[in-house]
Amino acid sequence: MSSSPYGLHRVLEPAGVLPQQAWRLSTESRSWPDEVVVDVARLNLDAASFRQLREQHGEPEAVRKAVLEIIEERGKMHNPVTGSGGMLLGTVREVGPESPLGLRVGDRIATLVSLTLTPLRVDDGLADWSGDSEQVPCRGTAVLFGRSIAAVLPDDLPDELALAVLDVCGAPALTDRVVRDAGPSATVLVLGGGGKSGSLSLAAARRAGAGRLVALVPTRAEAGAVEASGLADEVVIADARNPVAVAEAVGAPVDVTVVCVDVPGCEHGAVLATADGGTIVFFSMATSFSAAALGAEGLAADVRMLIGNGYVPGHATFALDLLRDTPGVRDLFERRERHTSRT
Amino acid sequence: MSSSPYGLHRVLEPAGVLPQQAWRLSTESRSWPDEVVVDVARLNLDAASFRQLREQHGEPEAVRKAVLEIIEERGKMHNPVTGSGGMLLGTVREVGPESPLGLRVGDRIATLVSLTLTPLRVDDGLADWSGDSEQVPCRGTAVLFGRSIAAVLPDDLPDELALAVLDVCGAPALTDRVVRDAGPSATVLVLGGGGKSGSLSLAAARRAGAGRLVALVPTRAEAGAVEASGLADEVVIADARNPVAVAEAVGAPVDVTVVCVDVPGCEHGAVLATADGGTIVFFSMATSFSAAALGAEGLAADVRMLIGNGYVPGHATFALDLLRDTPGVRDLFERRERHTSRT
Repeated sequence: MSSSPYGLHRVLEPAGVLPQQAWRLSTESRSWPDEVVVDVARLNLDAASFRQLREQHGEPEAVRKAVLEIIEERGKMHNPVTGSGGMLLGTVREVGPESPLGLRVGDRIATLVSLTLTPLRVDDGLADWSGDSEQVPCRGTAVLFGRSIAAVLPDDLPDELALAVLDVCGAPALTDRVVRDAGPSATVLVLGGGGKSGSLSLAAARRAGAGRLVALVPTRAEAGAVEASGLADEVVIADARNPVAVAEAVGAPVDVTVVCVDVPGCEHGAVLATADGGTIVFFSMATSFSAAALGAEGLAADVRMLIGNGYVPGHATFALDLLRDTPGVRDLFERRERHTSRT
Repeated sequence: MSSSPYGLHRVLEPAGVLPQQAWRLSTESRSWPDEVVVDVARLNLDAASFRQLREQHGEPEAVRKAVLEIIEERGKMHNPVTGSGGMLLGTVREVGPESPLGLRVGDRIATLVSLTLTPLRVDDGLADWSGDSEQVPCRGTAVLFGRSIAAVLPDDLPDELALAVLDVCGAPALTDRVVRDAGPSATVLVLGGGGKSGSLSLAAARRAGAGRLVALVPTRAEAGAVEASGLADEVVIADARNPVAVAEAVGAPVDVTVVCVDVPGCEHGAVLATADGGTIVFFSMATSFSAAALGAEGLAADVRMLIGNGYVPGHATFALDLLRDTPGVRDLFERRERHTSRT
């Protein structure tokens, strides 16, 4: 058997599926010629996954144990409820002679493929993690395949910040594309505009030439922060899960809606807020395919609905540059880090 | 309280959501001024829903009871596992003075909004249904809202056939759009090309100017039927849930992939079979949002992925015309009816 650029050779069960579909991956330490082995320093859990774990398990210590059990059982951090994972930061330990990724031993990297398909072994029992933040200090080993994507970490940004940006870097890159496609001065709504992917998407939409740019957030406090950031023309407050409230808060329907809210049930609000002929990009991993498809149909809404693909060529550089060039984005990221580590 | 064109006034729980999100709808017989009341003659269960029910409950009688229980508990035929429903056929009993739908009492219609948001009361205990086909004879009452969509049934086609076409009429209309957008002679793959939405999508792709047109089907028998229909340039056989098998069967990646297979796990095969820069349209209600999003990211695939919106203006007429003008589509539909009622 030879190795596969998609990592088929690491799938233990069920046989024949790709690593992301697999229940369990092999974390055996012998590596294949096109693999890269990484000493893990930190995991960054996907927001929808971390929220679900916290809701299910409550106490931070129980969340910590649950994450550890998932990784030990599955050989990867793949939340079985949300189907999502996150990404990791580490240092390249070993580069196979046939690896096409261009990485060197000692490179400090972040993986840009999901943890749901990345073989991962934890060696420290996550002892340094308190379970109360989606950023997880971790000693362990991860594996990249021939077709995996990783970014070398920039020297000019703190690791936590770079990791948080890279985790959602597909969102601004795809928003850029969609807003440009929609034509000059397209009106844009970002649901969850105060979050990581939301603030980057606002910045991307502005740079792509958006006209009226609306951020929807759940609380007055978050509205204040987004207003201070200057990223949006209008900041409105509503529960994104309440379609009628969303439509009323937004007013005139927009050409492009970007969904960055990490709770389920935001599909119909997005549909109601979007004009006929418009486009919705669903980035939230809490999106329900059937709720979106049947919701649009049920509302007789002629909207184009995109599944937010986390990969767009050049997405890492694009997102890091947006952060560097847009002080408001960095403010929101840093505020969010402070907030997350306080709760 | 006044009625809402979206049917908010019929939502019993949870409060404030749209009918499709609701757990339970009101089927009370007093109708609102913008509603249309329909005497139901037949339900057409969504294929993914019917398959799931059959897998869970086994015997036809148990399937029949399960459907009845869902309708009685929820006030609508909304499969809680798949999140999908289907549509219905009936005769207009009553038209509210403020209804904008243009229907008249006595019109024989099919609803083009999902059963997941259509208030439905069954009066005959589904006594005339054997539980072994997705077409369900039924006496009962359904309600259409101001913004619902319904099509008056054509005189020149049998009801079962018209209903089967209308059930999936969003697929060919959106395929038409996407293939035209992809440019002249775009290569097109239809996963599940022998099914209802699949055969209509093949016909739509051909009419929209597709170049190489490939149908993927699971069995030799179905391949024979699709070959005989003349709808595709190539018919290939593979399990759509096996991504590597799909990619190998299709060969050169295509510009547009249309997913019409009603089983879970077809996302990655679609991604692998689609060229960078290409588009995937997911019509199957068994599609997993996270599997599609993370799968494309994990494979570093720069593909555009669309959630198959069941509503496109003019979709009903478009699909019925395709059926009338394309003998191969009608052959496959009629073969499928025979097959379904045999198993």
